[in-house]
Amino acid sequence: MHKFPELSERHSDPTTFPPGVAFMDGQYLPISEAKISVLDNGLLHSDATYDVVHVWKGAFFRLDDHLNRFFGGVEKLHMSIPYNSAQIAEILHNCVALSGLQNAYVEFICTRGTSPTFSRDPRNSVNRFIAFAIPFGSVANPGQMERGLHASITDIVRISPQSVDPTVKNYHWLDLVMGLYLAYDRGAETAILVDNNGNIAEGPGFNVFTVKDGAISTPDHGVLMGITRQTVIEICAAMKISCVKRAISPDELRTADEVFITSTAGGVMPVTKIDETPIGSGLVGSLTTQITKSYWQMHEQGESRTAIRYPANAS
Amino acid sequence: MHKFPELSERHSDPTTFPPGVAFMDGQYLPISEAKISVLDNGLLHSDATYDVVHVWKGAFFRLDDHLNRFFGGVEKLHMSIPYNSAQIAEILHNCVALSGLQNAYVEFICTRGTSPTFSRDPRNSVNRFIAFAIPFGSVANPGQMERGLHASITDIVRISPQSVDPTVKNYHWLDLVMGLYLAYDRGAETAILVDNNGNIAEGPGFNVFTVKDGAISTPDHGVLMGITRQTVIEICAAMKISCVKRAISPDELRTADEVFITSTAGGVMPVTKIDETPIGSGLVGSLTTQITKSYWQMHEQGESRTAIRYPANAS
Repeated sequence: MHKFPELSERHSDPTTFPPGVAFMDGQYLPISEAKISVLDNGLLHSDATYDVVHVWKGAFFRLDDHLNRFFGGVEKLHMSIPYNSAQIAEILHNCVALSGLQNAYVEFICTRGTSPTFSRDPRNSVNRFIAFAIPFGSVANPGQMERGLHASITDIVRISPQSVDPTVKNYHWLDLVMGLYLAYDRGAETAILVDNNGNIAEGPGFNVFTVKDGAISTPDHGVLMGITRQTVIEICAAMKISCVKRAISPDELRTADEVFITSTAGGVMPVTKIDETPIGSGLVGSLTTQITKSYWQMHEQGESRTAIRYPANAS
Repeated sequence: MHKFPELSERHSDPTTFPPGVAFMDGQYLPISEAKISVLDNGLLHSDATYDVVHVWKGAFFRLDDHLNRFFGGVEKLHMSIPYNSAQIAEILHNCVALSGLQNAYVEFICTRGTSPTFSRDPRNSVNRFIAFAIPFGSVANPGQMERGLHASITDIVRISPQSVDPTVKNYHWLDLVMGLYLAYDRGAETAILVDNNGNIAEGPGFNVFTVKDGAISTPDHGVLMGITRQTVIEICAAMKISCVKRAISPDELRTADEVFITSTAGGVMPVTKIDETPIGSGLVGSLTTQITKSYWQMHEQGESRTAIRYPANAS
């Protein structure tokens, strides 16, 4: 006779999580308790949009820009959430304040959610809002920031705008993840994907820039409208450096004087080797260094900052 | 002075779930308790593969085929799980048996999982296996099965095989979901997407077939290798009906004698109207009816069945 297992009342989770605080359903929770149902269409159909804002030295950076992009995505996906922009700003603030983190990675998500009947019609799902603050992370570690990243250009085509609107920040990353595995196989540390036409698109979580003869370029097609990318464009304008959005071929990238990538997760990060080719001198370039410095200076003062008020007893 | 909210110890979830039983971390759980961390890369990067097998009248249908496809996807995504095929079959069996469901939708998932440090390197994540059984669902409801579905062909391009390998069953569905909203706007009930070349690809969770002058065709490019699709191909062979995998234009679909779709969620389902065009007579076609009948007959007996042993006190 077959012996049937017992049904447990609650899930006992052996997973180790980083520190952090999350918000769901009006509740602030330790990050270890922030979980979504396996029936949520955010998992089962990657039917979700999100944004990530960072906190540096106790202040959000360009919070309004991230909130605006997020609400744009929510609307394009026909979702709705019961919070306006000011309320989400308050929720994000509270997640960071309760976490005590001075430097944080703050993600906020709207998923399609679940329907009580597991309906296949997305209009029947109750959309779900989640936010969390965890320690700040970077695409490049300190060693890589100093010597520059080693990237590989793969022939994987970044998911086309004809399929998924890249202005809706989304979780469709299998192309990027498979790119990473290809890059690792080639001894590189990260991957750059191409677009439909074989031109440079973007990498896992970052936009790409080249420097040639003092002029800067970044792809204009089929890429995330990155807020760090936009910040670099503004820095270039302030520094009177030409910065153009245009198609960039893989060969142009390999023969550039400098290459750098941009992400909320790490800011401006140098790339000094692409596949077997050192970029320029093979050292971090001078314009990359200047722009990186300007980027972090913007965090110290001015209108890009939204300060966090921490509880008196915060760590 | 700012008043900070309290941190709750546990999440109190207001969501209503369908009945069902899940498996995670060696534990069998009510479906309402089956949750993954918001830090799981299965959510944050849609970095996951899965399969769905159905149970009909107390037996799995083609369980081995679903298990084989699943393990193929796990390997292609460089994931690993601590269960072999026989062990997963046992887990799925127990989920169904404990749920008491005679007709069930049984999904099993491998996600990239989480890393304790929120590392961006997928090799640092601990892969997670989840399985669940919930009541059987269908793309088409009983009324739609009788009169045929009304589909719309959208110009959204199904995510290309150059980006994501469609033989790895995956959750990259935003193109399909946006297709559904377009179809709803046009008064249709479901959507059919095209491929890079403008030919018919697939719809949300289903493959597409046409019948013209007694011969059957289905797209060969950029589509899921559906197991119901494969079953129909085998039924056609047994019935000595020509069934060819080839490129099919939207016009061919609109001028077909019959159109049907296939999915584990519902089997063989008729389409009798595409946009404003009735297909053939506008009624469910005779070959569609014959193939549907054969499909369900295969469930009654034979090697495709794997019977469930239910507990004596099961509902």
